[in-house]
Amino acid sequence: MSNRARVLIDCEDAKGLVYHISKVFYDRDLNIDNNREFVDQEKSRFFMRTVVTGDFDAQSLRSELVSVVPEDANVQVIEPQPKKIVLMATKESHCLGDILIRWVAGEFEADIEAVISNRDNLRDLTHRFDIPFVYISSDDKEREAHEKEVLEVLNGLEFDYIVLAKYMRILSADFVHHYPEQIINIHHSFLPAFIGANPYKQAHSRGVKIIGATAHFVTTDLDEGPIISQDVIPVNHRLEWKDMQRAGRDVEKIVLSRALSLVLNDRIFVNGNKTIVF
Amino acid sequence: MSNRARVLIDCEDAKGLVYHISKVFYDRDLNIDNNREFVDQEKSRFFMRTVVTGDFDAQSLRSELVSVVPEDANVQVIEPQPKKIVLMATKESHCLGDILIRWVAGEFEADIEAVISNRDNLRDLTHRFDIPFVYISSDDKEREAHEKEVLEVLNGLEFDYIVLAKYMRILSADFVHHYPEQIINIHHSFLPAFIGANPYKQAHSRGVKIIGATAHFVTTDLDEGPIISQDVIPVNHRLEWKDMQRAGRDVEKIVLSRALSLVLNDRIFVNGNKTIVF
Amino acid sequence: MSNRARVLIDCEDAKGLVYHISKVFYDRDLNIDNNREFVDQEKSRFFMRTVVTGDFDAQSLRSELVSVVPEDANVQVIEPQPKKIVLMATKESHCLGDILIRWVAGEFEADIEAVISNRDNLRDLTHRFDIPFVYISSDDKEREAHEKEVLEVLNGLEFDYIVLAKYMRILSADFVHHYPEQIINIHHSFLPAFIGANPYKQAHSRGVKIIGATAHFVTTDLDEGPIISQDVIPVNHRLEWKDMQRAGRDVEKIVLSRALSLVLNDRIFVNGNKTIVF
Amino acid sequence: MSNRARVLIDCEDAKGLVYHISKVFYDRDLNIDNNREFVDQEKSRFFMRTVVTGDFDAQSLRSELVSVVPEDANVQVIEPQPKKIVLMATKESHCLGDILIRWVAGEFEADIEAVISNRDNLRDLTHRFDIPFVYISSDDKEREAHEKEVLEVLNGLEFDYIVLAKYMRILSADFVHHYPEQIINIHHSFLPAFIGANPYKQAHSRGVKIIGATAHFVTTDLDEGPIISQDVIPVNHRLEWKDMQRAGRDVEKIVLSRALSLVLNDRIFVNGNKTIVF
Repeated sequence: MSNRARVLIDCEDAKGLVYHISKVFYDRDLNIDNNREFVDQEKSRFFMRTVVTGDFDAQSLRSELVSVVPEDANVQVIEPQPKKIVLMATKESHCLGDILIRWVAGEFEADIEAVISNRDNLRDLTHRFDIPFVYISSDDKEREAHEKEVLEVLNGLEFDYIVLAKYMRILSADFVHHYPEQIINIHHSFLPAFIGANPYKQAHSRGVKIIGATAHFVTTDLDEGPIISQDVIPVNHRLEWKDMQRAGRDVEKIVLSRALSLVLNDRIFVNGNKTIVF
Repeated sequence: MSNRARVLIDCEDAKGLVYHISKVFYDRDLNIDNNREFVDQEKSRFFMRTVVTGDFDAQSLRSELVSVVPEDANVQVIEPQPKKIVLMATKESHCLGDILIRWVAGEFEADIEAVISNRDNLRDLTHRFDIPFVYISSDDKEREAHEKEVLEVLNGLEFDYIVLAKYMRILSADFVHHYPEQIINIHHSFLPAFIGANPYKQAHSRGVKIIGATAHFVTTDLDEGPIISQDVIPVNHRLEWKDMQRAGRDVEKIVLSRALSLVLNDRIFVNGNKTIVF
Repeated sequence: MSNRARVLIDCEDAKGLVYHISKVFYDRDLNIDNNREFVDQEKSRFFMRTVVTGDFDAQSLRSELVSVVPEDANVQVIEPQPKKIVLMATKESHCLGDILIRWVAGEFEADIEAVISNRDNLRDLTHRFDIPFVYISSDDKEREAHEKEVLEVLNGLEFDYIVLAKYMRILSADFVHHYPEQIINIHHSFLPAFIGANPYKQAHSRGVKIIGATAHFVTTDLDEGPIISQDVIPVNHRLEWKDMQRAGRDVEKIVLSRALSLVLNDRIFVNGNKTIVF
Repeated sequence: MSNRARVLIDCEDAKGLVYHISKVFYDRDLNIDNNREFVDQEKSRFFMRTVVTGDFDAQSLRSELVSVVPEDANVQVIEPQPKKIVLMATKESHCLGDILIRWVAGEFEADIEAVISNRDNLRDLTHRFDIPFVYISSDDKEREAHEKEVLEVLNGLEFDYIVLAKYMRILSADFVHHYPEQIINIHHSFLPAFIGANPYKQAHSRGVKIIGATAHFVTTDLDEGPIISQDVIPVNHRLEWKDMQRAGRDVEKIVLSRALSLVLNDRIFVNGNKTIVF
């Protein structure tokens, strides 16, 4: 009987880590299908992601690994299983649509629990994919009141990640604290350029020759969370800001879907305000 | 007898501009080798760059064109002739070197009048190309005093453009006012991200996945002048900021040389704080 | 009353074309919103695409333009109206899905008349978008017999373009002759590299560091028709050919959708075996 | 006393390789600064590149490593030392110039022993960098005779790699056999597209929207050797083939210099007809 798991370890760096960890795999006669390591010299921190196959029990493998690495280590032995995600959106459909159409094609190892929106216009799109759509209007509501309603819905759901697929409301620190390293956002600029509102208008007004998009984990600092993925496209003087917005949609959706895929495949370590991408 | 000239016109937009201008060319039996137009709808401003060949006198062609376009028009009829440039640098050689090596290969339609530097270490490189090197130390000098010496040297030279090839001193507004739309700078970030000092350190600390470089005209607002050219390269968590700096050099030199080439070929219009690139 | 139309002209090059054409617009008091010209010097052929607005009748504007350009000219005055398209696919869903999801979001100025497939497995996806799905099995059929059935279905439909969204059967010359410059295909390589079957396997076996995709008009020469759009992504030694195939999907769908958008916006001229893209 | 070395190992894959190798490092108390591994599953072959620092003797470290890996293993322990290279060119200067200007700036850990050319026109450029220029005319000579003269010169030199910086003569199998995995070439197309002569003409005539360049090791199969590095740039219908050639120069020089840098840093494994790039 053969198992398969992703082993993720991050800990303070120490001599012999690779040796000690690979010894555990060797002694248990496990196959290493894929192995990536990185040491952040500045912070003296070690990161490792290994895919192992063989005859093992995840919990006991984890225990043994814990026993050979420093005390502060995070050790995960993750067996393949679809993660659960909730999508949040407002009115633009391109990111939501791209996720749904990839999902229905089996590109994401995930279950989509619900789409939550503060507008009602993506209901039809969501229902085309037989996914529950929850409309929680933000009209005439204080942020706190609106978020309370959203949290109530979220509390009724089981999920690993929230994906903000062009959700255009700023989340409060309170809200974000509920889901540390669990909220993925797409920002429609090449961060840190054009932080804040209307980045395409800002880009147009600045006369840049390239625009981009950034997927990042949401922290309490707006647009300042760890960057997972970025990409860009060239633009020129012929594009009005509305054209830039249109052109930017392709980048946004590709970048967000790529980030989601990395997260679902356990390829991301958060390292302070940065990410390690294996 | 056949002439060749680049005709550049920018003026407020008006009905029939293309008709009136092309009529001038048609009546004079000129060939149009290349024609680009653009209307900035927001500012209602018209831009046109045409390469004409045929039997004409530049001055009289210009006069006739002036007579058919609005009064505020800038009309240039530019006959092929190498432009004169002065290079300024500090200690990094990659941008200066790239310009010199392209220039010696005939890639630039330009004469290089001199290299001016506030350090002495690029003298040998410059002399390899038989170009005068002027060392004006900035040690222990106020900016004003140093710039005064530079201006004295510049006043003794004839030139169309100053190219800041990694010149690491900030120019005063006074200095810049002498050379409007004549100073080209390379900034080692994808502006407007990482304005100011040590952009690679900033980029590393922010954990971006892409870095870039920006060539722009220098105005009195630091790093805010009209952007001519930008490009980017992907980076990842493995790169220390010094590695980013190293990787960034290739982008910097390519972007600056591309911008210089566009300027020397009269392909750039400055349009407020932006550029039109034909 | 104000009309809007795209004027497309291609003809042998001649002196004064821009003058004569712009005179027609000027005399009729039309606004030029956007104007692009190109002369293929090798073939001495002129191409122009202009968007005009104003008070005009399309047919009489066309007649007048015809009267001022060479006899061989193709002159089109195209008023805005959704074009009709038919999609053909086999079993991979990513290109079809991307077109459907963009279409439902209003990104394409088009009506989708039907999806035709030689497999049955994309039926559910197609129906999610309320579009007719026509399954014409190719099992145990000669190409001729299968195409005959497809042609019967196509004859019952009205359409401007056929989009091969990963339709994996080679079309006969006979079939192609029915729809000159009307069939758009996506080839899963950076043509002309890896012509023919299994380009990802070929790319993997050749050890390339970049893979790509190519959208082109279908002609009777397999994979040799005029290229509309291409793009690429970096790959490395870690990718098995199946991984390359997976990674390539994003490029394929983006490139095909971009090409379709260009075609629907009348931005493509076919010029022999090449395209002009305005 | 602290040494530093790059350890490169490739061998048939086997269980416990990482464990056995890291045990050697651990037992000797060496630091691992950087570690990359890859297993080619298809060929069941293991590749590893590790940078180690500490107190060790290269030869005895190598012996110990050899004793823990399969018999067929190639084990290299490479201490930092500039490699020696010979450049060969014909008449185009951009690749040669880029290498020289980077070299003089200290970008390459290498000594340039000589530039050999079958034309005389790059002599001046080479001499600007105080490097011997050897002109071996190929006029009126059979390939064999010409190569014989080149080989005589090469035999008098000590070098690790030959870099063909736009050397436009095809090398015979005989010549190539002398320098297995030692000759690096830049091909001016995105291989395998446009194999053979005049790739830019071919690209122009095919109407591609992207052009590229490929650096590869030279084998006896023309343009078929292991690819080290590739890159591309977008082009459009406005470019004549001469313009494509001009635009392509930037890609060529960047790609060749990048490949050379990878080789000099011992980051390349040749794996059959492919490369592993660490």
